[in-house]
Amino acid sequence: MSMSKLVYFFGKGKAEGTGTMKYLLGGKGAGLAEMTNIGIPVPPGFSITTEACIYYYKNNKQYPDGLQEQMNENLKKLEDLMGKKLGDHHDPLLVSVRSGAKISMPGMMDTVLNLGLNNETVKGLAIKTNNERFAHDAYRRFIQMFSNVVLGVKHSDFEFILDEVKHDEGVTLDNELSTEALRNVVARYLRMLREVERIDFPQDPRQQLKMAIDAVFESWDSPRAVTYRKLYDIPDSLGTAVNVQTMVFGNMGEDCATGVAFTRNPSTGERVFYGEYLTNAQGEDVVAGIRTPRPIMYLNDEMPEAYAQLTDIYNTLENHYKDMQDIEFTIENKRLFMLQTRTGKRTAAAAIKVAVDMVEEGLITKEQALLRVDPAQLDQLLHPHIDPRAKIEVMAAGLNASPGAVSGSVVFSADDACSWAEQGKKVILVRKETSPDDIHGMAVAMGILTAHGGMTSHAAVVARGMGKSCVAGCEAIRVDEANKRFTVGNHVILEGDIITIDGSSGKVILGKAPTIEAEMTPEGITLLGWADGIRKLRIRANADDPEASRKAREFGAEGIGLCRTEHMFFAEDRLPIMQEMILAENEVERRKALDKLLPMQRGDFYEMLKAMEGLPVTIRLLDPPLHEFLPKYEDLLVEITRLEITSENKSLRLRESGLYGVIETTKQNVTDEDTKKLAEKKKLLHKVENLRELNPMLGLRGCRLGISYPEITEMQARAIIQAACDLTKDGLKVLPEIMVPLVSTVAELKTQKELIQKTAEEVFEEKGIRVDYLIGTMIELPRAAITADKIVAEAEFFSFGTNDLTQTTFGFSRDDAEGKFLDHYVETGLLAKNPFEVLDRDGVGELVKIGTEKGRSIKPDLKVGICGEHGGNPSSIEFCHMIGLNYVSCSPYRVPIARLAAAQAVLK
Amino acid sequence: MSMSKLVYFFGKGKAEGTGTMKYLLGGKGAGLAEMTNIGIPVPPGFSITTEACIYYYKNNKQYPDGLQEQMNENLKKLEDLMGKKLGDHHDPLLVSVRSGAKISMPGMMDTVLNLGLNNETVKGLAIKTNNERFAHDAYRRFIQMFSNVVLGVKHSDFEFILDEVKHDEGVTLDNELSTEALRNVVARYLRMLREVERIDFPQDPRQQLKMAIDAVFESWDSPRAVTYRKLYDIPDSLGTAVNVQTMVFGNMGEDCATGVAFTRNPSTGERVFYGEYLTNAQGEDVVAGIRTPRPIMYLNDEMPEAYAQLTDIYNTLENHYKDMQDIEFTIENKRLFMLQTRTGKRTAAAAIKVAVDMVEEGLITKEQALLRVDPAQLDQLLHPHIDPRAKIEVMAAGLNASPGAVSGSVVFSADDACSWAEQGKKVILVRKETSPDDIHGMAVAMGILTAHGGMTSHAAVVARGMGKSCVAGCEAIRVDEANKRFTVGNHVILEGDIITIDGSSGKVILGKAPTIEAEMTPEGITLLGWADGIRKLRIRANADDPEASRKAREFGAEGIGLCRTEHMFFAEDRLPIMQEMILAENEVERRKALDKLLPMQRGDFYEMLKAMEGLPVTIRLLDPPLHEFLPKYEDLLVEITRLEITSENKSLRLRESGLYGVIETTKQNVTDEDTKKLAEKKKLLHKVENLRELNPMLGLRGCRLGISYPEITEMQARAIIQAACDLTKDGLKVLPEIMVPLVSTVAELKTQKELIQKTAEEVFEEKGIRVDYLIGTMIELPRAAITADKIVAEAEFFSFGTNDLTQTTFGFSRDDAEGKFLDHYVETGLLAKNPFEVLDRDGVGELVKIGTEKGRSIKPDLKVGICGEHGGNPSSIEFCHMIGLNYVSCSPYRVPIARLAAAQAVLK
Repeated sequence: MSMSKLVYFFGKGKAEGTGTMKYLLGGKGAGLAEMTNIGIPVPPGFSITTEACIYYYKNNKQYPDGLQEQMNENLKKLEDLMGKKLGDHHDPLLVSVRSGAKISMPGMMDTVLNLGLNNETVKGLAIKTNNERFAHDAYRRFIQMFSNVVLGVKHSDFEFILDEVKHDEGVTLDNELSTEALRNVVARYLRMLREVERIDFPQDPRQQLKMAIDAVFESWDSPRAVTYRKLYDIPDSLGTAVNVQTMVFGNMGEDCATGVAFTRNPSTGERVFYGEYLTNAQGEDVVAGIRTPRPIMYLNDEMPEAYAQLTDIYNTLENHYKDMQDIEFTIENKRLFMLQTRTGKRTAAAAIKVAVDMVEEGLITKEQALLRVDPAQLDQLLHPHIDPRAKIEVMAAGLNASPGAVSGSVVFSADDACSWAEQGKKVILVRKETSPDDIHGMAVAMGILTAHGGMTSHAAVVARGMGKSCVAGCEAIRVDEANKRFTVGNHVILEGDIITIDGSSGKVILGKAPTIEAEMTPEGITLLGWADGIRKLRIRANADDPEASRKAREFGAEGIGLCRTEHMFFAEDRLPIMQEMILAENEVERRKALDKLLPMQRGDFYEMLKAMEGLPVTIRLLDPPLHEFLPKYEDLLVEITRLEITSENKSLRLRESGLYGVIETTKQNVTDEDTKKLAEKKKLLHKVENLRELNPMLGLRGCRLGISYPEITEMQARAIIQAACDLTKDGLKVLPEIMVPLVSTVAELKTQKELIQKTAEEVFEEKGIRVDYLIGTMIELPRAAITADKIVAEAEFFSFGTNDLTQTTFGFSRDDAEGKFLDHYVETGLLAKNPFEVLDRDGVGELVKIGTEKGRSIKPDLKVGICGEHGGNPSSIEFCHMIGLNYVSCSPYRVPIARLAAAQAVLK
Repeated sequence: MSMSKLVYFFGKGKAEGTGTMKYLLGGKGAGLAEMTNIGIPVPPGFSITTEACIYYYKNNKQYPDGLQEQMNENLKKLEDLMGKKLGDHHDPLLVSVRSGAKISMPGMMDTVLNLGLNNETVKGLAIKTNNERFAHDAYRRFIQMFSNVVLGVKHSDFEFILDEVKHDEGVTLDNELSTEALRNVVARYLRMLREVERIDFPQDPRQQLKMAIDAVFESWDSPRAVTYRKLYDIPDSLGTAVNVQTMVFGNMGEDCATGVAFTRNPSTGERVFYGEYLTNAQGEDVVAGIRTPRPIMYLNDEMPEAYAQLTDIYNTLENHYKDMQDIEFTIENKRLFMLQTRTGKRTAAAAIKVAVDMVEEGLITKEQALLRVDPAQLDQLLHPHIDPRAKIEVMAAGLNASPGAVSGSVVFSADDACSWAEQGKKVILVRKETSPDDIHGMAVAMGILTAHGGMTSHAAVVARGMGKSCVAGCEAIRVDEANKRFTVGNHVILEGDIITIDGSSGKVILGKAPTIEAEMTPEGITLLGWADGIRKLRIRANADDPEASRKAREFGAEGIGLCRTEHMFFAEDRLPIMQEMILAENEVERRKALDKLLPMQRGDFYEMLKAMEGLPVTIRLLDPPLHEFLPKYEDLLVEITRLEITSENKSLRLRESGLYGVIETTKQNVTDEDTKKLAEKKKLLHKVENLRELNPMLGLRGCRLGISYPEITEMQARAIIQAACDLTKDGLKVLPEIMVPLVSTVAELKTQKELIQKTAEEVFEEKGIRVDYLIGTMIELPRAAITADKIVAEAEFFSFGTNDLTQTTFGFSRDDAEGKFLDHYVETGLLAKNPFEVLDRDGVGELVKIGTEKGRSIKPDLKVGICGEHGGNPSSIEFCHMIGLNYVSCSPYRVPIARLAAAQAVLK
């Protein structure tokens, strides 16, 4: 196969490529071409395209036809332009060979500098530069770098020699070494290579060049590069370009320098030139940390002309690229050369400030500004996060179940959490897993750490609802609740020890990590205002209590899309009543318990609806399997077994005691009490056993509860409508929307709807007032989506529950899948993304689309939203926009993200 | 609302209706009209349409406009025709009022005879018939029947009076009562009604008629009628017709008779006139059982003329209706009248014989014959069933998990089952639920009865696979395995007691119920041969061992559609190796165990493929969650708790014993052993805990196993291909089809396919021979159906696993749903059918359709089948035919059903 053009030349104000050719030339190559074309001083050179690399990998590491010839031609052109020749003993051309993919992968791939030096050319360089020391230092650096990058020899082998020579010479810094010492270093490097590694260091510069280019190609497939791409979602198929560029030197003397800078502050976004430089140094010295680089402003004092030129250039670049740039430059004998320009990475705060400032500066439009900020980054702004500059000791990592970084003393039970909190201590509640019994402890803790459970485990869901930080399913920790400690690796963490958990990243950190507080900047408010003007999707929040509702409203939520009423029952004072209701022997008993719950629920809804006055509030009827409210079957089983044996043994011992002539009359009573307790526990066990399910996710839950026990639906509907009536009487406008969960047939919805309507009419009668309300349903089962044209007959709105829909569409139980095989699927590429995080467009998304279309085929104006966790995920929001949903609903802290993502969806 | 025609007249050789108007006139009315039209003697009368009844229910029990007028007109017409008038004191017209719905509901609804009698007309009747005794007996009967049916007075109130009078008169039979006594009975009836019930018996015959018609309408909604319709799937919306017909009397003397008969034997289908009659009796006497009716053949001796006429008529009817008829007749003074003709209900054997015979007699075509047999009935033929004439005591009912009626001694453990079976005893294994540990016991038992678990519980699935009878989830029984007994109601059943279970109906019967052995009749073989000539669907069987495969082939299976390899691992000798594999710490250990399983699996497949030589065999790779092969978590937990306490107590007692001066040195060793055992058990518990899942149905199973542990897939693929190669070398033609289960993305299938192909190539190399084989997948998740156009790229066939697909599409875990809410759903009509029994066309079926269409959009010739339990359900088979599937696969015993149903699908 012959490919037309595989090498692009740049130099002397003219490049064959342009800045738009990133796909072909890589980011670096395109930047060099563009800078060359707009008249910025760039050392000439040429770029080998990514296509060559792709061909190389597809064809058993062979070059495409013509590549060698084109490289030769371009090298000739470069030699002619520079008036030097590669390998010329008197005036050798020296080049750098750098990788450069379309998407920047900093530090991931390889660079060789000073290529072209050998035992002969080093002498020519010494004479030509009139700087023998520099020439040998350059050769020393080249051997080290080439051997490492191309030949795979360890750095430490060279460092060892260098240290020995420094020791012999009695100096500490590299730049204190004499020419003679450097000559010695070179000789020892070459000997070590020959004798230890059995390598004759290649002396032919063309061979050096070929080897370096191959090494760059190879580096695309290095494990760290592969890992990086996986991490940042960069396709393996892109390949890398190779840039061969004339060397310029920042280390030829005190009128030389090298530096890196950002055109604005990448942490804050402030419009100040921001960077650092070193005089008389080569690029790698800036990062090596041996000499401390100076802030860029001092360059103005040291080399005012170069600084002025640099200022002109960075302004030109910003004006040209309309974005903040990350640049690299070298000053060789006072002459400035640009080696790289690229879009600068930045924090969320900086991204927002730069975008908003640039609109004000007239550089970009509001629409462009909106596209400049990655919505996912906003999460940083809205939760405290770990100071990125801090040195921290990460002990383990779990699931990033609920965002925010918090520190506190470790406690191992909900009760301990409460008593420590009462003493004013900040605590992190650590549990194997949480249950409804832990709610009071979770409420007072700064954060929750669990060893088991997935993103929808009790801990995760409740923590997100409460806005607490949570790291869940951290399988590396072994929690010993009984002895109040957990171990991880070699660490043993006792009650009271301080740890930090970062629910945004899943990290568990030893000690108190410094954190940065969350805040929404003025520029953020401006930007989100622009987003609101553009987006078509409405944004609602998932919130279960007035506190979270207020927070959501503050963040711009336009309603509550999902209020999970079951969370209201987990409260400490309510759980016993809930259990009473569940354990009731008959409807009469059940209604008694429900009567106690009614005023509590009414109070909840009163406060919720009040907090969201004027905005719609979607309240979902009771959803989870009832056994979630009961003690765990296994715990009861163990308890009963213990009681049984104790009782058996006591009888036995009584008999034995009798044999020994000892009378223990008191024991008999104890045994009677035990028997009674045992009987009670057994009864409870029997109840729990009856409610227990093999696959509770697919069992008696959702509307199946309300259908089996209509009195539950009745109580909830009554509480909602009563609260709405009371608030309306108080002069407030409320918009309750009652949502029936887990519907699979229209008949289910119909029966629940009729019951709700009947109850509502009773309340209207009793209160002497009517309120508007809607009845709708969650579409969260494939059958509901497939038969949405039938279900819609009874629904005033649809809300897609994409969490459950993902579970049933894939047949993945999230709690089981994430620990057991889903990670493996994502790691090995069987799934591009975890479908619980990013909506699976082909499968689950297709069902959402089908459901929406079928629903609207009957009711064209049907209001449709989603209320799964996908509601806060930008890619999923984009999909929701594309298929014409009315709204997305997400957790309060993700509302700003959703606002921005929804605007971007319009603009994309 | 005015309805055109609400009443249809019949009489004197001409009827307004016809036999095709069952929907409007009901079965009885249409039959009467048709008989009238073809010249058969029928007492004249008129039918009020079902539309009138439907209107009545829709309009608050009002008659439609015009009904009363039309009734009056028709009554007038009838009076004119008969020359008698309703209520005429001298020659009163007497009528019967009978219900008659489109679909016969025998005994469910109401009938009033002799209507028109009152204190005056009874005298006229006496004079006119010259039979005073008859007239008063008729009045007595009328009062009793009318009061019961129309006025709701209990039968016993009348029986009490009748018995008193008989006692006073010193007679035992009703027909021994004198005229005077009957007059006395009438008087006492009327007095009782007046004084006890506060009812003046209506004397106005028109009022009687109106009341009787209303009562018939009302009877449509009686609880027993509603229950019956539910049971037999008769829509509530049909309504009933009302037939008002001139009375004829079989009880006017010895030249009178009444009888019921079938034109052929309804048990065997034999072509003999079959029925019974009573002389001098009214219809209800035949069923009342006071006098024993005589076989119909004796009528030829008693009333040869009437018998000859009857013979003519029944031949006419069979020739006219082309089907076996169930008739009612009355002979009044030697004159024959037909009161009813309808299609006769029959046993499966009779249905087949009648259909095949009628083809031979030239009455019907083969196609018609095929439509005459209900495929579901065939089940009766293929399993032993309880003799319908036997008197049995049903103790409880569970799920009809695996068909067939069997008797045996009750045992409560698999080991007991084995030791009893070794002694040559037939046993029924009774368990709370079964687990893999019970397999050896299930294998030797006649049948299995469990208290818990649904249609897909371990017991049910394994029993069906083994062809054993099974009643599962019989919640009414309380099993006490420890004490070897179970209780149900007042019964206590001990080990060794004989019970019978009927896996076809779910009944559990005390003692040994007489059963009828299964056999396929010659006519059945003929009929199924015709079916094979017509059907388009291929029929395969689900079979997991050579025995079942041979059975399936015998029943006409054209291949194996589903061989569940996991069942092979449950065998007693293999389970330990399977557990070794699962508990392996690493791949090396796991491969060691798999190496032991390989020859066993190869042997299985060798035998299976051999048994199905020349036919395709679809082998599904390992599917269930691995913890199904391990001991139960709860059992281990209890065991460990016991061991822990024992160990604690022993230490304690050792110390205490010391106090009492008693030295128990041996105990120390026991404690050490205990500690060791405890540690082992704890390790096992930990493993089981790790494999345990919250929702195993949606967890690590199906292809997720083969992806997580590729060596399992490798072993299975190797075993299949090795067996295929060996058989091919032996000169046999084998067609293995390897099926990858539970695929949700094409990537999953691709990785498994590549592994299978690689393994196959290795085997071909090693064996020096190649065999043809296919690789396909099960479509059993909604996502697989929705993305079938992508998945098909890697699949050579699709098999819809409609069991799992139903679970995920509905979000119903079958095991949980059937006990908890699904029954309630079906009972209350929220679901028309249990979707696990009958394929849900709107939801699950739609996904099957989508999946098939999408698959064939890419590969038009793609072979598609289903292998869920629906493959043996006629309605589901019809759907599969409609959407163009290639085959259905069902359990071996359902293959004949499927063959017939597939033919019917073509004909319908």
